[in-house]
Amino acid sequence: MNAKIDKRDVVVVGGGPAGVIAAVTARTYYPEKTVLLIRDLKRVLIPCGIPYILHHLGGDVASDVMPDAPLEKAGVEIMIDEVTALDRDKQVVHTAGGRTIAYERLVLATGSRPVVPPIEGARLSGIYTVAKDDRTQERLVRAAAEAEDIVVVGAGFIGMEVADELASTGRRIHLVEIAPHVLPGAFDEEVARVAAEKLSGRGVRILTGRRVERFIGGERVEKVVLDGGEEIAAQMVILAVGYRPRGELAAAAGLEMTRKGALVVDEFMRTSDAHIFAVGDVAGTVSFLSRKPTSIMLASTAVSEARMAGMNLFSVRVIRPFRGTIAIFSTVIADTAFAAAGVTEQMARSENIAYVVGRGQAPDMHPGKMPGAKTIHVFLKVAASSGVVIGAQMYGGESLGELINVVGLAIEQGLHADELMTSQIGTHPRLTSAPTAYPLIKAAENALTAMNSR
Amino acid sequence: MNAKIDKRDVVVVGGGPAGVIAAVTARTYYPEKTVLLIRDLKRVLIPCGIPYILHHLGGDVASDVMPDAPLEKAGVEIMIDEVTALDRDKQVVHTAGGRTIAYERLVLATGSRPVVPPIEGARLSGIYTVAKDDRTQERLVRAAAEAEDIVVVGAGFIGMEVADELASTGRRIHLVEIAPHVLPGAFDEEVARVAAEKLSGRGVRILTGRRVERFIGGERVEKVVLDGGEEIAAQMVILAVGYRPRGELAAAAGLEMTRKGALVVDEFMRTSDAHIFAVGDVAGTVSFLSRKPTSIMLASTAVSEARMAGMNLFSVRVIRPFRGTIAIFSTVIADTAFAAAGVTEQMARSENIAYVVGRGQAPDMHPGKMPGAKTIHVFLKVAASSGVVIGAQMYGGESLGELINVVGLAIEQGLHADELMTSQIGTHPRLTSAPTAYPLIKAAENALTAMNSR
Repeated sequence: MNAKIDKRDVVVVGGGPAGVIAAVTARTYYPEKTVLLIRDLKRVLIPCGIPYILHHLGGDVASDVMPDAPLEKAGVEIMIDEVTALDRDKQVVHTAGGRTIAYERLVLATGSRPVVPPIEGARLSGIYTVAKDDRTQERLVRAAAEAEDIVVVGAGFIGMEVADELASTGRRIHLVEIAPHVLPGAFDEEVARVAAEKLSGRGVRILTGRRVERFIGGERVEKVVLDGGEEIAAQMVILAVGYRPRGELAAAAGLEMTRKGALVVDEFMRTSDAHIFAVGDVAGTVSFLSRKPTSIMLASTAVSEARMAGMNLFSVRVIRPFRGTIAIFSTVIADTAFAAAGVTEQMARSENIAYVVGRGQAPDMHPGKMPGAKTIHVFLKVAASSGVVIGAQMYGGESLGELINVVGLAIEQGLHADELMTSQIGTHPRLTSAPTAYPLIKAAENALTAMNSR
Repeated sequence: MNAKIDKRDVVVVGGGPAGVIAAVTARTYYPEKTVLLIRDLKRVLIPCGIPYILHHLGGDVASDVMPDAPLEKAGVEIMIDEVTALDRDKQVVHTAGGRTIAYERLVLATGSRPVVPPIEGARLSGIYTVAKDDRTQERLVRAAAEAEDIVVVGAGFIGMEVADELASTGRRIHLVEIAPHVLPGAFDEEVARVAAEKLSGRGVRILTGRRVERFIGGERVEKVVLDGGEEIAAQMVILAVGYRPRGELAAAAGLEMTRKGALVVDEFMRTSDAHIFAVGDVAGTVSFLSRKPTSIMLASTAVSEARMAGMNLFSVRVIRPFRGTIAIFSTVIADTAFAAAGVTEQMARSENIAYVVGRGQAPDMHPGKMPGAKTIHVFLKVAASSGVVIGAQMYGGESLGELINVVGLAIEQGLHADELMTSQIGTHPRLTSAPTAYPLIKAAENALTAMNSR
């Protein structure tokens, strides 16, 4: 059996963004080490691009494939195979293809898979999850082209984006969300309401605070039954109710896991086995604020973890510990960008954090009469007594995609509202709000005023 | 004469962005104090918007007027008059309108005026500066509509933007710059060359490394003569060779001035007189890196100074001192955005700072096949031994207007390249580069590699 055991210095399991960046970073920092990346798919999709296959990418799944060039350029060896077992004593992994590969350092980047909720009929034909493999996506795109009525279950980012894209293709879309408002994980009610209005304006029927009771059909789904008995006729259902870590391999090997099935990791992304790191959706994360486990699954967070792991595989080179996950989100609904970072009202309530909200708004160009200007609205959360910036939510023009990263850095650096307020910024008539009205700074100023008047 | 002397707690002289923000901030932080803003113009233009009156704002000067609403809303009293003298002993200012107003705190925000270079014929009719008053702008817009050939002298931001706007209106534009490349104050040659190519692509004839010898004409300008004798026929000339502080009032009152005619200020924008603050173009600034005087005149920098002054007028409330001016710029030339922060190659050379450049590039959406994606190019400057981020230059899509503010905050917070590289960021297919390729982080990584291989 073990006639020949291949050995590599670093073995990365998983070919998504976290696996790729961990492998490339390992090669960058340890050019003398061999790095092997094992993945079970020939083609890997860019995860955040998946909803956009439906309309922006014209239904072409191939347009969303992650190129192998960066891996090849970095000298990472790629193996298409499935890792089926991990033997920590022998420091080897076994694959479905019958290979046994020894490692000095193992990086688990096995990702997550969509949750199928325990609803009657959820396995009927015509019901899809937003899975991350190319085959499922090809089937989903074909099915969407043929359906007239589509029910999307779950109004998180993926559900909202899928509904928005499908609305562009002329389907009738019904979006069902169990929480009282859309985007409940990232936004408070006030901003979420705007997102819902924008999506409704595109013809999407939004049903919040509603639960799916069951799916009805023969072989294929025909109807979705909601609480209260309302039925929606639909030829297709898309489940977008979240993802679960693919932690089975790790759990079977006896690594320490969180209650949610993710790997427990330290500041440097090391698991309970000193030779094994975990990054991305399969790694448990802690909130930057509460230091409690959080279930943020974002490619951007994943690659930040992957860089940390890749740099520190053989010795801790980066003295600065990972401060915990801030969760920085952005999206576009209809023609409006939405972005959030840090705590929501709900998180603050459950963690008992007193805060004030500072508001700022201004056109995203200046003067406001510049053609195409959209108004940016910023809601900045500041700890009520200490003045530390702990979160922001915003909506408006497309520059928010990077403006939220200014806030992200401010949170990560522990900035106080007065530091943010007096930060130096660059502005330009065609690119940003006016310096006098820059909404992030106005929001900081407004928060300080609110703090002082408490 | 002095039968009745009005008295206000705070008197702000100057109605540009710095004056407005100083006044509003003073009212916010000291609501019990009376604040009077004196300005010599009925209508104040948004300074950075001035070039865009020519095309984007359709020639309508009124579109670029700064609203008085924020002043009124904050309870700032506005007076249209010209301050002609300052008596520090009596703590009063005298105006052209015959008023005498006493102050407890005075904020000088008198701004700057365009430099008219000492070139023969520079006072001929048809030769304009990019002055900040509405009358001059109205004349300039009318003249530009009638000219066929226009020579713009100076390829800084204002000259480049004016040339780009005029090219859109169908004029023949000649842009003359004495330095070896365009945008010499903010960009190194490599990025500046791209900006020049974009502007040439719009039909603008660019002459770098060339000096204007004289202007020829009867009453109106007819020709521009360059070094070497080349003549350019032109019915209009626009001088965009910089601005000089309007420091005469302060100098006459005996306040300490820099060699360049600006007011010497401390970390809190206080002048050599404890009752007098100065902000904006008339205040001298120091570089964040060298702590030496620098001559950056940006509205964004001005309002940052104004907030600092406004907060600290009666007692220093913000313990964090102003770290010196980083100079964060952005603009759009043709269809490409350009942005810069921190040191240029030339500054680093004159300050003898050893640095490495990290490069990163990626489409500004992901996957790269998203319709409308443009490539972002980032050049990050990192101090060679310590790894501190000291500058960045970039070009690409319009999200750079805010991406440069991420770098600005990183520089202001003294971040090291490894902290920037492992920063958490938010990404989205329609708004940003892919997390795996995010060019700012790739540039930080690339810089670290370059540092380690030295």
